[in-house]
Amino acid sequence: MKIDSIDFFYLTMPQVLDIGDGSQDALLVRVSAGEHVGWGECEAAPLVSIASLVCPMSHSACKPVQASVLGQSIDGVDDIRRIGNLVRANSLDLLQADHTLSGIDIALWDLLGRRLDEPVWKLLGYAQSYPKMPYASVLFGNTAQETLAKAKRIRALGFRAAKFGWGPFGTLDVADDESQLQAAREGIGEEGVLLVDVGTIWNDDLARARTRLPALKRARAQWLEEPFVSGALSEYHALSQESQPVGLAGGEGCHNFHMAKNMIDLAGLQYVQIDAGRIGGITVAKDVADYAATRSVTYVNHTFTSNLALSASLQPFAGLDTHVICEYPTELQVLAREMTLNHITPDAEGFLSAPDAPGLGIEPNLVGIQSYLVDTEIRVGGKLLYRTPPLS
Amino acid sequence: MKIDSIDFFYLTMPQVLDIGDGSQDALLVRVSAGEHVGWGECEAAPLVSIASLVCPMSHSACKPVQASVLGQSIDGVDDIRRIGNLVRANSLDLLQADHTLSGIDIALWDLLGRRLDEPVWKLLGYAQSYPKMPYASVLFGNTAQETLAKAKRIRALGFRAAKFGWGPFGTLDVADDESQLQAAREGIGEEGVLLVDVGTIWNDDLARARTRLPALKRARAQWLEEPFVSGALSEYHALSQESQPVGLAGGEGCHNFHMAKNMIDLAGLQYVQIDAGRIGGITVAKDVADYAATRSVTYVNHTFTSNLALSASLQPFAGLDTHVICEYPTELQVLAREMTLNHITPDAEGFLSAPDAPGLGIEPNLVGIQSYLVDTEIRVGGKLLYRTPPLS
Repeated sequence: MKIDSIDFFYLTMPQVLDIGDGSQDALLVRVSAGEHVGWGECEAAPLVSIASLVCPMSHSACKPVQASVLGQSIDGVDDIRRIGNLVRANSLDLLQADHTLSGIDIALWDLLGRRLDEPVWKLLGYAQSYPKMPYASVLFGNTAQETLAKAKRIRALGFRAAKFGWGPFGTLDVADDESQLQAAREGIGEEGVLLVDVGTIWNDDLARARTRLPALKRARAQWLEEPFVSGALSEYHALSQESQPVGLAGGEGCHNFHMAKNMIDLAGLQYVQIDAGRIGGITVAKDVADYAATRSVTYVNHTFTSNLALSASLQPFAGLDTHVICEYPTELQVLAREMTLNHITPDAEGFLSAPDAPGLGIEPNLVGIQSYLVDTEIRVGGKLLYRTPPLS
Repeated sequence: MKIDSIDFFYLTMPQVLDIGDGSQDALLVRVSAGEHVGWGECEAAPLVSIASLVCPMSHSACKPVQASVLGQSIDGVDDIRRIGNLVRANSLDLLQADHTLSGIDIALWDLLGRRLDEPVWKLLGYAQSYPKMPYASVLFGNTAQETLAKAKRIRALGFRAAKFGWGPFGTLDVADDESQLQAAREGIGEEGVLLVDVGTIWNDDLARARTRLPALKRARAQWLEEPFVSGALSEYHALSQESQPVGLAGGEGCHNFHMAKNMIDLAGLQYVQIDAGRIGGITVAKDVADYAATRSVTYVNHTFTSNLALSASLQPFAGLDTHVICEYPTELQVLAREMTLNHITPDAEGFLSAPDAPGLGIEPNLVGIQSYLVDTEIRVGGKLLYRTPPLS
């Protein structure tokens, strides 16, 4: 069975706001092989990933991503890894390629799962998909009062854990940050699991990060996420020596296995957060999950768009029973919500599981997303390289 | 003085061949501020970097690169660093952004140097530009005979050092590789400096890399370049323990300071190779050069397109007198040769220097490149986001 086509669909809200909300646009991926179809999603910057799918070759190690995928045979899971390796070699000098490959790899797993009538987590070798404890993932409010209200709402919805991130946190003074943290703690209650995401706000400034540790400890945050950019290994490690009992979380910026491995080995992380839509897909994410497990680092999914991306992000660690916590975006834009016909929702105990259904277990809503589809066209040297394909 | 415009020009040979020759296309960058102009170049995949310059925003940390550059003030060198930091923060989730920023950063240094009538290396704080020993950088021949002929030609041209890379090397058996190495050694003579570049051919396979060490030692290679992908820190380090007196070289794949710092600190490198057209420009490359010098690791430029890119690659270590060896592509396609009116050539002793002239000291050949300019057009949602601008 050969891969016949790769279709990229750029979806966007009518207006994209300058806020840390990744569900405002999406790049939906469809891969076809014979009569079989699979769906995936690339994280962020749809136009750039479209360009890297179809761009003209620069040289032998800078080919468009599609050159290593179209026409390849896809008969088993080993083929997915083989195709990923081809993309990484043939597009070595094309930086965006890892993000572009991610959506294709996810779609190939979905395609194979649908064809073999098995959930992806089974194809990955897991016998069981364990329930995960979702944390509600929201932005900090603009004020401590807003954060308090958000936290109370999350608690009322039955969540045991909440993550607050971005917004003004880390950019103002330490006292303001402490008020935000105390508001979050008050809102979710004494028993709630509190997670804090600062979105690389301190870049690699160890001193500034240090000043927030006392407030994080007083608010009993379970983790501090992305104090620094991915790769600032020595700064992460130094901070981890002082942050306990607050664990460090990071890794979402990793776009290949080695970056994640280095974060696990050398950054003092307690939690490694992997976005299957960036790191090269489910294949590489599963490699990281396997490695993290051998190093006593907890694997956590990173995701903030549709439930298709959510399902893809859950598969790599579905079978790791002691890696319990999981990201679950709860402030999705209507686009990300309407992108899929079915959704992944917490069970009666408030836990979340990777779907027990063929492939990723998520059906894209082809009619519903039509109005979010944005016509895109790329021409080079008079040749049409890309035009938004029809959805059906 | 505000940045008024950023123009990207996609240049390409009529036919791009499937070989490891990066001079087959180019992305020329022009930045204007008031009456001042500067020129730069981004390494590889022109269309993808164009897309990341102009793409619609996905969210607050995934903005098009131009959003952080246009309208910014550019009055001194600190502004260049400030603009780079803005791009990295505002385009955190746009993987291609580092490559795109690189050409803009280079153009900003050129602009400032022309305006202040100083070479870039002086603006970087160097009192002097030291001559470098260029190595002729060529592809391995398809056969050992071809490699022998290439090596003899390089020697006849007066080069003291030659780097052979890519081609069939590392993909066939050990005996074939040994023949190639012996042919290269024979051709350049007993005194010639022999460098070998395997272009990540072994990915992270330590065992396969090991099998080539005896032949490399027998041929007295001074360095083995990129046995593994950038970031395979533990594999690099393990190989470095066995490779002496062959030193390891690597780092061209690094696209930010931290990746290069980790390679310097943890990979056992003897030579760190930085492409100013990828790592974020001259600013970040200079940071790496400074850091390498404190760690007794030799900084080497990586470059393989025009003499504009060559000049940009030389500036960051122009003033480091003990970091002597430098890359000098000698098999440029006519496009890369004709891109500039003037060229950097070895002096009577065979040494090369960063130009002692304002900015990068290189004039683009606006008439000569016209025939290589390829019309490019990107439309999203009916809106024209990019069309090749006029060259003059």
